[in-house]
Amino acid sequence: MNLESTPGGICAAKGFRASGVSAGIKTSGGLDLAMVVSEVEASVAATFTTNLAAAAPVLLCRERLQKGSAKRGIVVNSGCANACTGQRGLSDALEMVTAAEDEAGLSQGSMMVCSTGLIGSFLPMGKVKLALPSLVGSLGLSDTTLAQAIMTTDRQPKRASFVHEQGWSIGGIAKGAGMIAPNMATMLSFITTDAKVEAGVFQQLLSQAVTFSFNAITIDGDTSTNDSVIALANGASAIAPDPSDLQRALDLVCKSLAEQIALDGEGTTKLVTVKVRGAKSAIDADRAARTVASSTLVKTALYGQDPNWGRIAAALGRSGADVDFEHLTIAIGGHEVLRSGIPGDAPVLALAREQMHGSRFDIDCDLAVGDERKEIVTTDLSQEYVRLNSEYET
Amino acid sequence: MNLESTPGGICAAKGFRASGVSAGIKTSGGLDLAMVVSEVEASVAATFTTNLAAAAPVLLCRERLQKGSAKRGIVVNSGCANACTGQRGLSDALEMVTAAEDEAGLSQGSMMVCSTGLIGSFLPMGKVKLALPSLVGSLGLSDTTLAQAIMTTDRQPKRASFVHEQGWSIGGIAKGAGMIAPNMATMLSFITTDAKVEAGVFQQLLSQAVTFSFNAITIDGDTSTNDSVIALANGASAIAPDPSDLQRALDLVCKSLAEQIALDGEGTTKLVTVKVRGAKSAIDADRAARTVASSTLVKTALYGQDPNWGRIAAALGRSGADVDFEHLTIAIGGHEVLRSGIPGDAPVLALAREQMHGSRFDIDCDLAVGDERKEIVTTDLSQEYVRLNSEYET
Repeated sequence: MNLESTPGGICAAKGFRASGVSAGIKTSGGLDLAMVVSEVEASVAATFTTNLAAAAPVLLCRERLQKGSAKRGIVVNSGCANACTGQRGLSDALEMVTAAEDEAGLSQGSMMVCSTGLIGSFLPMGKVKLALPSLVGSLGLSDTTLAQAIMTTDRQPKRASFVHEQGWSIGGIAKGAGMIAPNMATMLSFITTDAKVEAGVFQQLLSQAVTFSFNAITIDGDTSTNDSVIALANGASAIAPDPSDLQRALDLVCKSLAEQIALDGEGTTKLVTVKVRGAKSAIDADRAARTVASSTLVKTALYGQDPNWGRIAAALGRSGADVDFEHLTIAIGGHEVLRSGIPGDAPVLALAREQMHGSRFDIDCDLAVGDERKEIVTTDLSQEYVRLNSEYET
Repeated sequence: MNLESTPGGICAAKGFRASGVSAGIKTSGGLDLAMVVSEVEASVAATFTTNLAAAAPVLLCRERLQKGSAKRGIVVNSGCANACTGQRGLSDALEMVTAAEDEAGLSQGSMMVCSTGLIGSFLPMGKVKLALPSLVGSLGLSDTTLAQAIMTTDRQPKRASFVHEQGWSIGGIAKGAGMIAPNMATMLSFITTDAKVEAGVFQQLLSQAVTFSFNAITIDGDTSTNDSVIALANGASAIAPDPSDLQRALDLVCKSLAEQIALDGEGTTKLVTVKVRGAKSAIDADRAARTVASSTLVKTALYGQDPNWGRIAAALGRSGADVDFEHLTIAIGGHEVLRSGIPGDAPVLALAREQMHGSRFDIDCDLAVGDERKEIVTTDLSQEYVRLNSEYET
């Protein structure tokens, strides 16, 4: 491995500064406004939620990404998602980013803007603007305050950063309310690198990394209105890595952050990878893996540490994927509880149950009709999840 | 209304007899083998699970329905679903129905066969055959023992029967483990009428009734391997009703049974009808209603009695349906918490919250892009649900 873990998060890469302050958006008084700025124009890549009710800042970022602008950084708030806020939400998002650019001495159209928090309430624009001078004034080489300021009900910040033996670095940060407060609109991730890479290539690499990381985890099957992954490559290392190296680095950062999000969900006690193979098509493999990974019954069985392969088989059966049930194989924690259509005996079930007492294990499903594969990372569904999500008051 | 409620369940209609006995399939020793027989050949209509892992008895019933056979009744067991059991399961199902036909003095191919219970285990054929003489010997004009014998973890039998002013009757019975033991393979319903109706027409009427009843409830989004609705019309009243009258009667019976299934789910505290209107197409209306009704986040908010319209809007946004979010209206318990894109104020939310303290209320969503509608009945998601489904041991 020519990539080594290094501290620093999104400030691990050269030429990026970050800050976070309290603007009074969160009623708790916690940090809630943050900024990351590149010293020079960066190549920008991003992916956004597919939810039709995409929040105002997402709509604005999409537009800027298409235009190829917003090359200098990101301004972000927590405590308010600015989602389902109509025309007023759009003008608020534009006003917020324009004021941030002005304060930072950047030209209009230089930054992206993100929001996370409660859906359906308006940004307190007065508070945001009042806090911008101290936000810009405190820009520095640590992402500690930024990490605090993008959290909603996360228990801890999620970071990953690596340095390549050639001398370039990459780092990322993410916030994900995971299972704990999912009407907080949910996942944000910012990634920086001082590698040199052309924007079109960078976008392809990021899209690929996101497909197999953030888009391959499922906690509750609900897609947020604000999900955004934004990556900046400012070339400050003066090194243009081989695209396959940069891909591997992006994959590492994104997978690490995605798993940290899943693990941080309160109520989550297990991280389970559903691995489907033997599918007739890539679409079938995806459907099968997602249906198993999202099944309420499978997820409660994971919590209960019950090797209930009947629930897995039933989920495969309704997934829409082609399955040869006469030759279907299902393994839990490496033990084949159903082998080519034949149920495992009590000793095998006992071995599988033992594996399920751990906090990480795999479910392998061989559909026995082709060669396509798909992996989806999921979590269990606990009573604590229901308590947290039902006791939350709008 | 020319239909009046009457007691009797599936024995409300003339010319049907039922029975139920204990064969020892359930380890509890409870009733677990049942039969319903029509005195004469009946028109048969049926709908079955769309799960690709359809159980052996479902495969056999589908075949008989296509051939136009199985006109005299149904034999059914609980305690074992005979699902995911391969070739041996198929021959067990055939052996079970053939032995039942022999014992009842009916020709081969006269009956349907159903199973409900644990997925992945084989039928104890010896026990089944030993119990058939007492099952046939106890056929009578009450469905009480049949109702007991098809239950798995249902708390109570689910019945509905009506008599038409013209003198014909219709009745139905259902078992549904609902939320409580969903690896019991789940829903069965039998419907009888002494009306005269041609089989092809009867099938159309039943399919229509099932679409807006059993197929319009969602508890956990998991489709069972054994779901079957079988209806027998034996003409014993010598009355051939107007098809629209029979449709209304079937609708009444099916809707009543479907709601009873949802309400019987342990852990269920609320029955909520999601009503989508203003959709661009029928498919969009269905997608939108199902996505809201299945959302874990919406269902936990229902349990928490929280008028969290942001979760509803986010579910609509990821449903794939076209939605005009600038004009979207969402009402909970009749109170518009979002009116044409504008969030309701605190007093409106308080009124909605008050309605949510009841055990039945509606969620109305106007997507504002067309004229199509769809209703789906759902339940809340409680901590009790998770407890029950995680503590179950395979």
